[in-house]
Amino acid sequence: MTITSPLPSDAQKTTGEALQASLVDLFDLSLLAKQAHWNVVGPLFTSVHEHLDTVVDLARRYSDEVAERAAAIGVNPDGRAATVSSETVLQQLPPAWTADADVVRAVVAALDTLAARFRERVLATEEADPVTQDLLIEVTDAIEHQRWMFQAQT
Amino acid sequence: MTITSPLPSDAQKTTGEALQASLVDLFDLSLLAKQAHWNVVGPLFTSVHEHLDTVVDLARRYSDEVAERAAAIGVNPDGRAATVSSETVLQQLPPAWTADADVVRAVVAALDTLAARFRERVLATEEADPVTQDLLIEVTDAIEHQRWMFQAQT
Amino acid sequence: MTITSPLPSDAQKTTGEALQASLVDLFDLSLLAKQAHWNVVGPLFTSVHEHLDTVVDLARRYSDEVAERAAAIGVNPDGRAATVSSETVLQQLPPAWTADADVVRAVVAALDTLAARFRERVLATEEADPVTQDLLIEVTDAIEHQRWMFQAQT
Amino acid sequence: MTITSPLPSDAQKTTGEALQASLVDLFDLSLLAKQAHWNVVGPLFTSVHEHLDTVVDLARRYSDEVAERAAAIGVNPDGRAATVSSETVLQQLPPAWTADADVVRAVVAALDTLAARFRERVLATEEADPVTQDLLIEVTDAIEHQRWMFQAQT
Amino acid sequence: MTITSPLPSDAQKTTGEALQASLVDLFDLSLLAKQAHWNVVGPLFTSVHEHLDTVVDLARRYSDEVAERAAAIGVNPDGRAATVSSETVLQQLPPAWTADADVVRAVVAALDTLAARFRERVLATEEADPVTQDLLIEVTDAIEHQRWMFQAQT
Amino acid sequence: MTITSPLPSDAQKTTGEALQASLVDLFDLSLLAKQAHWNVVGPLFTSVHEHLDTVVDLARRYSDEVAERAAAIGVNPDGRAATVSSETVLQQLPPAWTADADVVRAVVAALDTLAARFRERVLATEEADPVTQDLLIEVTDAIEHQRWMFQAQT
Amino acid sequence: MTITSPLPSDAQKTTGEALQASLVDLFDLSLLAKQAHWNVVGPLFTSVHEHLDTVVDLARRYSDEVAERAAAIGVNPDGRAATVSSETVLQQLPPAWTADADVVRAVVAALDTLAARFRERVLATEEADPVTQDLLIEVTDAIEHQRWMFQAQT
Amino acid sequence: MTITSPLPSDAQKTTGEALQASLVDLFDLSLLAKQAHWNVVGPLFTSVHEHLDTVVDLARRYSDEVAERAAAIGVNPDGRAATVSSETVLQQLPPAWTADADVVRAVVAALDTLAARFRERVLATEEADPVTQDLLIEVTDAIEHQRWMFQAQT
Amino acid sequence: MTITSPLPSDAQKTTGEALQASLVDLFDLSLLAKQAHWNVVGPLFTSVHEHLDTVVDLARRYSDEVAERAAAIGVNPDGRAATVSSETVLQQLPPAWTADADVVRAVVAALDTLAARFRERVLATEEADPVTQDLLIEVTDAIEHQRWMFQAQT
Amino acid sequence: MTITSPLPSDAQKTTGEALQASLVDLFDLSLLAKQAHWNVVGPLFTSVHEHLDTVVDLARRYSDEVAERAAAIGVNPDGRAATVSSETVLQQLPPAWTADADVVRAVVAALDTLAARFRERVLATEEADPVTQDLLIEVTDAIEHQRWMFQAQT
Amino acid sequence: MTITSPLPSDAQKTTGEALQASLVDLFDLSLLAKQAHWNVVGPLFTSVHEHLDTVVDLARRYSDEVAERAAAIGVNPDGRAATVSSETVLQQLPPAWTADADVVRAVVAALDTLAARFRERVLATEEADPVTQDLLIEVTDAIEHQRWMFQAQT
Amino acid sequence: MTITSPLPSDAQKTTGEALQASLVDLFDLSLLAKQAHWNVVGPLFTSVHEHLDTVVDLARRYSDEVAERAAAIGVNPDGRAATVSSETVLQQLPPAWTADADVVRAVVAALDTLAARFRERVLATEEADPVTQDLLIEVTDAIEHQRWMFQAQT
Repeated sequence: MTITSPLPSDAQKTTGEALQASLVDLFDLSLLAKQAHWNVVGPLFTSVHEHLDTVVDLARRYSDEVAERAAAIGVNPDGRAATVSSETVLQQLPPAWTADADVVRAVVAALDTLAARFRERVLATEEADPVTQDLLIEVTDAIEHQRWMFQAQT
Repeated sequence: MTITSPLPSDAQKTTGEALQASLVDLFDLSLLAKQAHWNVVGPLFTSVHEHLDTVVDLARRYSDEVAERAAAIGVNPDGRAATVSSETVLQQLPPAWTADADVVRAVVAALDTLAARFRERVLATEEADPVTQDLLIEVTDAIEHQRWMFQAQT
Repeated sequence: MTITSPLPSDAQKTTGEALQASLVDLFDLSLLAKQAHWNVVGPLFTSVHEHLDTVVDLARRYSDEVAERAAAIGVNPDGRAATVSSETVLQQLPPAWTADADVVRAVVAALDTLAARFRERVLATEEADPVTQDLLIEVTDAIEHQRWMFQAQT
Repeated sequence: MTITSPLPSDAQKTTGEALQASLVDLFDLSLLAKQAHWNVVGPLFTSVHEHLDTVVDLARRYSDEVAERAAAIGVNPDGRAATVSSETVLQQLPPAWTADADVVRAVVAALDTLAARFRERVLATEEADPVTQDLLIEVTDAIEHQRWMFQAQT
Repeated sequence: MTITSPLPSDAQKTTGEALQASLVDLFDLSLLAKQAHWNVVGPLFTSVHEHLDTVVDLARRYSDEVAERAAAIGVNPDGRAATVSSETVLQQLPPAWTADADVVRAVVAALDTLAARFRERVLATEEADPVTQDLLIEVTDAIEHQRWMFQAQT
Repeated sequence: MTITSPLPSDAQKTTGEALQASLVDLFDLSLLAKQAHWNVVGPLFTSVHEHLDTVVDLARRYSDEVAERAAAIGVNPDGRAATVSSETVLQQLPPAWTADADVVRAVVAALDTLAARFRERVLATEEADPVTQDLLIEVTDAIEHQRWMFQAQT
Repeated sequence: MTITSPLPSDAQKTTGEALQASLVDLFDLSLLAKQAHWNVVGPLFTSVHEHLDTVVDLARRYSDEVAERAAAIGVNPDGRAATVSSETVLQQLPPAWTADADVVRAVVAALDTLAARFRERVLATEEADPVTQDLLIEVTDAIEHQRWMFQAQT
Repeated sequence: MTITSPLPSDAQKTTGEALQASLVDLFDLSLLAKQAHWNVVGPLFTSVHEHLDTVVDLARRYSDEVAERAAAIGVNPDGRAATVSSETVLQQLPPAWTADADVVRAVVAALDTLAARFRERVLATEEADPVTQDLLIEVTDAIEHQRWMFQAQT
Repeated sequence: MTITSPLPSDAQKTTGEALQASLVDLFDLSLLAKQAHWNVVGPLFTSVHEHLDTVVDLARRYSDEVAERAAAIGVNPDGRAATVSSETVLQQLPPAWTADADVVRAVVAALDTLAARFRERVLATEEADPVTQDLLIEVTDAIEHQRWMFQAQT
Repeated sequence: MTITSPLPSDAQKTTGEALQASLVDLFDLSLLAKQAHWNVVGPLFTSVHEHLDTVVDLARRYSDEVAERAAAIGVNPDGRAATVSSETVLQQLPPAWTADADVVRAVVAALDTLAARFRERVLATEEADPVTQDLLIEVTDAIEHQRWMFQAQT
Repeated sequence: MTITSPLPSDAQKTTGEALQASLVDLFDLSLLAKQAHWNVVGPLFTSVHEHLDTVVDLARRYSDEVAERAAAIGVNPDGRAATVSSETVLQQLPPAWTADADVVRAVVAALDTLAARFRERVLATEEADPVTQDLLIEVTDAIEHQRWMFQAQT
Repeated sequence: MTITSPLPSDAQKTTGEALQASLVDLFDLSLLAKQAHWNVVGPLFTSVHEHLDTVVDLARRYSDEVAERAAAIGVNPDGRAATVSSETVLQQLPPAWTADADVVRAVVAALDTLAARFRERVLATEEADPVTQDLLIEVTDAIEHQRWMFQAQT
């Protein structure tokens, strides 16, 4: 039993790859933000600690929407730990107390990386599937919004 | 800068190990349940799909409580993808459409494994830290509750 | 007294036709889903019965948005029973108790038909009115999301 | 597989006919009110436009209660577009901008027609099924309440 | 000290007996549904388990309304375990894991029995107390609504 | 401009008189309960003071429903102070501090009077207008419920 | 048993008279607004009908605050129908269908009268009791706010 | 089909007996409190009547938690009327109007009995199952809290 | 670093003293009401116990507003236990079970004392700071409202 | 310190200009709608007065989203009064009582102007930044929706 | 058509000028706070950015109350951009990224200016209109509360 | 009249002392946190000011639970100002503006002290009363959680 696709097979392939890569990006963003949420220290602890949970929330919400969009076009999402671990491009945080300014810098770097990757996918899916493109535009908007708010703290 | 511990150092070590292992268990449970949530197919799709999100929610909520308890006793939680991927003991699902009955069986197996591991930690922390023990009892209760509800479906 | 259009007349015509046809599609989807909601029988009654009301809700919400968008570009929406009855392309259900699996198959077929029709309208309105196109993309997303969830039950 | 009836067969027939006719009345009232909601123009646009959605809401809520009552006594409800279109007795609105006073008059006429039809059904079901009668009394009350509020605007 | 009755003594007696018997019926329905809620097993566990709590809720709510109506007409309600146990007519479930289909059949049988008993009380109280009759009509409606929804699952 | 009636003229007259008298009864009940709410003293002040506001709320809610039902059948409701003052049959409270037990007795007497009057109207409107009768049954139920709860305190 | 006053006896007398007169004013405003709420007709029925309930709500809320303030200074509030009827200075509405514009004019006249009377009481209580004065200022503000909004409709 | 136990068989037996006896205790407490809720009379009617519903709520909530914990360890809960009736140790109330002070004394006696029985179970399950013990501690806390609040009224 | 004052220095001194004394009064009122909340016994336990928490809530809310107003005018609020203990004028309750009537009398005495003290401060701040005066009027109103409600219970 | 841009510099310039001009448009729309909200008079006062606050709310919400999007691409938003005053293209209302029909006409004219300006920006940003384009499409939709609803009132 | 005034003409003039100047002050405070909200940078970005929206909210809420009070006394409020721009006395922020400490200093300066201006108006309206004075006291309180909280950050 | 104890007298004494000392600790923590809440100054004012109210809330909630648990075991809680003042072991803050970093250090010190004291009580009550021990474990958890979050800011 498989889910059939409303897209022709080329478009399905292009779109499926964009969505799977987005899922890995967003899942690791949620893990990275949680890791920072727990290990941050410094005078700005409170606001950084709480701000990171906003990032976790949006990363989790969009990872779910991205994965369900993949299913809707007949592509199996893969969000397993081993997949995320081997495919992520994000610079990892150490398992240690980390100063608030260092955490902010690391989050800006992660969001910078993701913004560029999502912008490419917005272009890549324009022809293949405007429905998916619309979702990726929405994710890009949210990422760039957080990127500004974290960069403003540096 | 480090967080000091309200526990003597032996107790801190025992408790910290129990909490870190719990964090890996709960994070991978949340990933496994999400993976199943997206890839399940079959006549019981709706109820299994929704039930799995309840598991995701409790796994995420308790992973956060467990990690913050670690921080509170001066131990750095490590919830990074590579750590979860390399330390998890849970049997992984394939990235493919999976029949509802197979999903239910896989979830029962995962919860069975976790219930046994948490029961050991409840004993291990009794002397070391009754505050942590109380949290682990609460997690065990939630896991065994879900274990019954999934087993009842087989 | 008429509502003037913010669109040039060719664009208004193209867009108005897409919206009127969408209104008929969505209204009949709501009627078909309600018909199934009341007449379904079988072991999966509960989940299918409730799931269909989710379809009714989205079909009603989007039929209203589509009709109000038509008014906003100066086109009269027509959602009367006779219009829906004569213009709908959906395969009708019988007025009889219908087994849950048959209901699921009928809903998948209806959503399949609508997904293809909405994808055409997304292309047709791209030049004529990007505002309307954006709404039609959102409706397509919702329809394909339900299409996956019902197909997964077969 | 059929749903058995808690009523003897004569009572079931009488009650089933009253409920099916009520379903058609209420569904077409909801369609007529939506049609007016979108096409009304004039200085009183805002209050008439919003008031009509109250009518849509009650017509939808009671159409569902009426149809589920039919199912509960073992009668298949039929709410398909073709059925509504061919069996409705309501005077239809044109697909054109309609002045607010004309809309109000048309709604008063529709509610007048329905009030008389529901009063007959209240009498017809008194012996056959007091449970259904109680529901039809409640619908009559709601219709006559709206009838007063629209007539007061003329 | 006793509560006086707004009803003449014959009417009070007739109405009081109908209400007391309704109280026993509804209390035992709530106990039977809870018993099934805990002991059901099978692939449809989730939906049957949850559906039964809806039955518990309505049985509890109406048992309270029925008992307070008895008090309001000066009759002492008796909802003690021994009374319920000795006066109930419902077929009891075993204290054992019970398959989902068996549970559904048992609930249909219980609701069937209660629907017939409440219909008799609706007739019996028509002259004696229309206020109580109106409450009993409402309970009958709720019971027959659930009866349809459980029967549809068989 | 007048509101036409959905009832024949005899039925309208009978029903209109029942509703107008109900309006006076309920409005004066709300005034009496507020008067007691402010002037009660004694050890049971708190519970009596709060309980009276429940009576005020139901008296106000039903006075509005009763008056709007009158309008719906084309009869002008009259809720002016002079009308209420001259037509009420309720025994008035003095404008003075009143002991809690005296207040309770006065409220029981008022509710006793109203219960008898509403029961007569339930019979009087049975033929004339079952829709109004249903509303009056609901009001009677609420009044007798409060009558029990206040009588239980004596 | 009486409630003692936190005010000297002269101040209590002045303040008590201002509060008792305010209670009559506000109670009759609520009755007048309800009377208009039910009997208004005309194209603006909807907005006037709803606006009047806002007036009812504020009149009821402030009548309660004013009466409880009287009790708090040891003065018995008197809100009985006969008192309101004989002491009110408001021009009464007829028990008949009344055109929307006539209703608006009548409400403006009533609010005009009350605004002047409350302004006098604000001055009268300035020395006697600044706590009561503060409440009367708040009521005056609400009355003049409604006075503007109704006058703007003429 | 049976639910397997996460406990060894001795521990399961000890724990299961404690939970089944707790279920009977809590169910009969809910029935006793409802019986008192309906039949209490006296000046303190209002506060006792309402307070008893708080007891009903907690008895129902914990009976459900206790029964589901039994299921989770593979033991069938038995909450049938006959079981409750034959196994309860609580002194029953008469089916008659009962003075408020007598009701309070009866509730104190019932809570006294239950507190002692739950304290024994807390000890009995300490070794067998700390997860169940934690739940029984929570129930004991709630029972002793109510015991204080009712005893304070005597 | 200090907060500058928007008031001239004399006015700041007068106002600051009024606010600091109000803070002590309100903090000790909250402690006294909690002390009574826990130690009250007698038939009226429930209503007195709950009523006292309303007093605690308002005492805490206004103590915070009073202290923040002090800060806003550049005066350091002092709410430490030693300050409250040495500066309070309220008659203290014993640490023992206290009969409900005795508790009510003690609360009336405390509110009587505070009402007189706040009335003096309303006069004292009239010239110095009308913004603070407005807050103190609001507190006086709340205190006198509770004073009436407790006195009514004696 | 400056915020870097995720866009190349040409795209940033084009997009930044579109956003800054949108900010001025939306801020002045909110001021114009408030001005009308306060100064409107006439029989339709209530509905126009309330409708204008809906326009204020959407203008404020979108002005914030537009300005934060500018910040996110490294462009400083300028929403100062002098900027809005000198750059707005909207026809200003007089500071005088204005008849409801005149207000409606003025709002239609303002929304007409803005709709055309936003449509140009939708085209201008298509290449430069699809993320911003998506936001501008959403604003255009909201403006054209209000434009229809106000035009329908003329 | 004009709104008549409840105030004599001198009092109306004095009060109207105070309210119009307050409107300009509050509108420009809202614009200044939004400008800072978007352009602030620095380690304290998060808390300053969010705190400023609290200021925007209160400035908008009170500007509306002040303007509607002007209308209520028959004076036309003028909140147009050109009026605000030419009449404001607040020091403007640059359209550029601004360090958090600089933003805080600018907000303290603005609130300082406004506090002094509102205190003058409180005195000016004491005789003319105590209702308006009460509103201006409330605004002053809110401004001085924010002034303290921003000054505390310097 | 006294509340009897469900505990033997030795256990009651041990447990009662632990609870009374906990009450003093928690009450003084709430006073200390409020004192800091009002007097803190510095760049981190906002987050420290708000964070302290979280501490106040938990200190108040647990002081109430601790005191009511004392009452439930027949021990009189004593939360009077003089008792708190003389028995507290917490280092007091000065009544003066205090820099944010100093406040954070003082709160860490207070929480450090309390954590150690509560850990002793957890051990002391293990035998005497596991119900009380469970509550003290919960309080310890909350205190150590706050201790980590404040220490992380240093």
